[in-house]
Amino acid sequence: MTVELVCVGTEILMGNIVNTNAAYMSEKCAMLGLSMYYQSVVGDNPGRLRELLVQAKGRSDLVILCGGLGPTQDDLTKETAAEVMGRSLVEDARARQEIAAYFKDRRFTMTENNWKQAMVPEGSIVLYNPNGTAPGMIIEGEETTMILLPGPPNELIPMFEEQVYPYLRSRQPEVICSRMVKVCGVGESLAETRILDLIEGQTNPTIATYAKTGEVHIRISAKAAAEEEAYALIAPMEEELYRRFGDHIFTDQEQETLEESIAKLLIANRLTVTTAESCTGGLLAGRLVNVSGVSEVFKEGYITYSNEAKEKLLGVAKETLAQFGAVSPQTAEEMARGCAAAAGADIGIGITGVAGPDGGTEEKPVGLVYIGCCCRGRVMVEEFRFNGNRSKVRQSAVAYALRMLRDAVLAEVSQ
Amino acid sequence: MTVELVCVGTEILMGNIVNTNAAYMSEKCAMLGLSMYYQSVVGDNPGRLRELLVQAKGRSDLVILCGGLGPTQDDLTKETAAEVMGRSLVEDARARQEIAAYFKDRRFTMTENNWKQAMVPEGSIVLYNPNGTAPGMIIEGEETTMILLPGPPNELIPMFEEQVYPYLRSRQPEVICSRMVKVCGVGESLAETRILDLIEGQTNPTIATYAKTGEVHIRISAKAAAEEEAYALIAPMEEELYRRFGDHIFTDQEQETLEESIAKLLIANRLTVTTAESCTGGLLAGRLVNVSGVSEVFKEGYITYSNEAKEKLLGVAKETLAQFGAVSPQTAEEMARGCAAAAGADIGIGITGVAGPDGGTEEKPVGLVYIGCCCRGRVMVEEFRFNGNRSKVRQSAVAYALRMLRDAVLAEVSQ
Repeated sequence: MTVELVCVGTEILMGNIVNTNAAYMSEKCAMLGLSMYYQSVVGDNPGRLRELLVQAKGRSDLVILCGGLGPTQDDLTKETAAEVMGRSLVEDARARQEIAAYFKDRRFTMTENNWKQAMVPEGSIVLYNPNGTAPGMIIEGEETTMILLPGPPNELIPMFEEQVYPYLRSRQPEVICSRMVKVCGVGESLAETRILDLIEGQTNPTIATYAKTGEVHIRISAKAAAEEEAYALIAPMEEELYRRFGDHIFTDQEQETLEESIAKLLIANRLTVTTAESCTGGLLAGRLVNVSGVSEVFKEGYITYSNEAKEKLLGVAKETLAQFGAVSPQTAEEMARGCAAAAGADIGIGITGVAGPDGGTEEKPVGLVYIGCCCRGRVMVEEFRFNGNRSKVRQSAVAYALRMLRDAVLAEVSQ
Repeated sequence: MTVELVCVGTEILMGNIVNTNAAYMSEKCAMLGLSMYYQSVVGDNPGRLRELLVQAKGRSDLVILCGGLGPTQDDLTKETAAEVMGRSLVEDARARQEIAAYFKDRRFTMTENNWKQAMVPEGSIVLYNPNGTAPGMIIEGEETTMILLPGPPNELIPMFEEQVYPYLRSRQPEVICSRMVKVCGVGESLAETRILDLIEGQTNPTIATYAKTGEVHIRISAKAAAEEEAYALIAPMEEELYRRFGDHIFTDQEQETLEESIAKLLIANRLTVTTAESCTGGLLAGRLVNVSGVSEVFKEGYITYSNEAKEKLLGVAKETLAQFGAVSPQTAEEMARGCAAAAGADIGIGITGVAGPDGGTEEKPVGLVYIGCCCRGRVMVEEFRFNGNRSKVRQSAVAYALRMLRDAVLAEVSQ
């Protein structure tokens, strides 16, 4: 069954709000195994909305609209959808009662225009709205069904969860299941080349890659009559990905982040970590502390932006800073050793670099970053040359520091 | 001039990512006085993309596409747009060089499929990409111009700011000038009610509010024949906003962030700052270090996630932690005092709270955060109860810590 989304609202076209409703409904539709080919946004303009709905009706089995159900003059979604579906509007008695009750309960003054919200397309399934005044509607046509939902997320989400999802589930013969395999330390195009044959050969399951800073996520999706069947289709493809990427795969859990997978490794192996950050100024520690419960293995960290701080807090030698400079492999190494010693941690990560836009030189350009990783006395230092603005350089540095941390833990564990 | 957005990416249709690019570009187009009537999202499917582009070409002066420019098999935006615009693809020498350099600089293994990204529609304006491998393109047709941009926001945003915006600006007959007044420490709905009369009465200039975490941005835009004229229309409205929000306005510069405005204040008044972070784990320091040159006033910071670290690095009293707990106004105060003393800084900020999802209690629920600010011995402590998930709670804590830091500097200066 094909579905498309039509979001109505000038505030989206003006960029005043981010269209989070679309992302929410897309994920739910994907979970239901609905094939979504189009999403559209139009303003509160009946002419353009009509044109779009006629087109949507012609190409999709299911059209989900959100927004424009309110009481005001320019809320015309319902009127336009009813017209395109060839229905007239009739008053729904219960909707009228609930609107009256909504205002009474809140002691709000009710204006006449609110009764407009009790009008529904004849023969439609009314989705009553405990969180607002505008009910939703399902208009079942011969080829196409239109579902109208209110725009505010606090009204739309409960209505979708409690009424729309079960309705769609009951209409859906197939389920789609998917698994997200997340890879770090391999560029997107390199990752893609490694699985090109799988991508080209894909039918069911399908696979798609998503590039993130320092990570590549690979989604395997399968359609089947039942969940078990779908996962049975996914399993061999996932095994194949593990064969090809091995240790570079840090999780196959949709919600698990790189820092979470690392925290698990650290906790499972009773290894503690600390950080000494110059150009990243706390962002690496910030990523680690994204993980609830990381306190078991991450007790403290240091932001040592000045040379003085590097000497005072980490014991980096004055001579090292003088001879090689703050941005050097030698300093990165001493930062890593120094923070591990200061915090009494098994692993210390030191990051120093030129994030820019100022401070770059011929010899040490903007984007040059050294990361040291000291694991129980053994130190690895890597040199990186990142592109982009200050923020991109710093984000990349954090992503690669996490990869080095993970590699260090894996190496330690494998001994 | 009418514009429409076409975002290409199955990951948007599957709900894997929120389409923040659309909100970003919509706001920029509104600033330019372009009329946006449609936004669409399609998957990586050349047939449906072609159909949509033909339609867009027929109804809009300008079509902005984003996504699908990468090196992989399913990146087909460029090929499809070129076909619809009747152009063939030719290799761009500089793009080829830059792609090679991108991999060489990073010592990444370059795979053959990357050369695909050096191919551009003949006669198009190439937008070189310092933050990635895929260049953008402007294809000027007789009626319609298509602009192709890469999907990753850290590539798209700088390319839009530095290359696309000036290009569009030069094509606009009327100048639209705007000024962004940024407010901190006032909630969005409160901010809106304070200026409701201005919003309702707006014609030229117009004003629009944008809610950010802990900030509200108010854009004043004016249309005129010349810049001076437009700014003359903006000036009285801006003065009115200053009358209504006073010190809560931290900048009227489009690009200036809260941390930049604070760094300026600190540098101008020779005040140094340091940070002691528990639940935010380095994010506050990370925000400060966003500012190039902040090292003058921010030398070091502490991440003290464990009680031991709070005692060892900040000198928080064991008794305080035992009697009041790590999440308490007393601990926040001692963290603020302690980090200022340890770093020898004029101002110390201490943050402690329950970010969740675990660790909440009846008495100390998830979202409870205490922030202490010690300025030359005088300490302010504020209690906050933030909503949302772990990441939202931590971001809010950082936003309000920055506001407290700013207030402390202003108070110090005004003495």
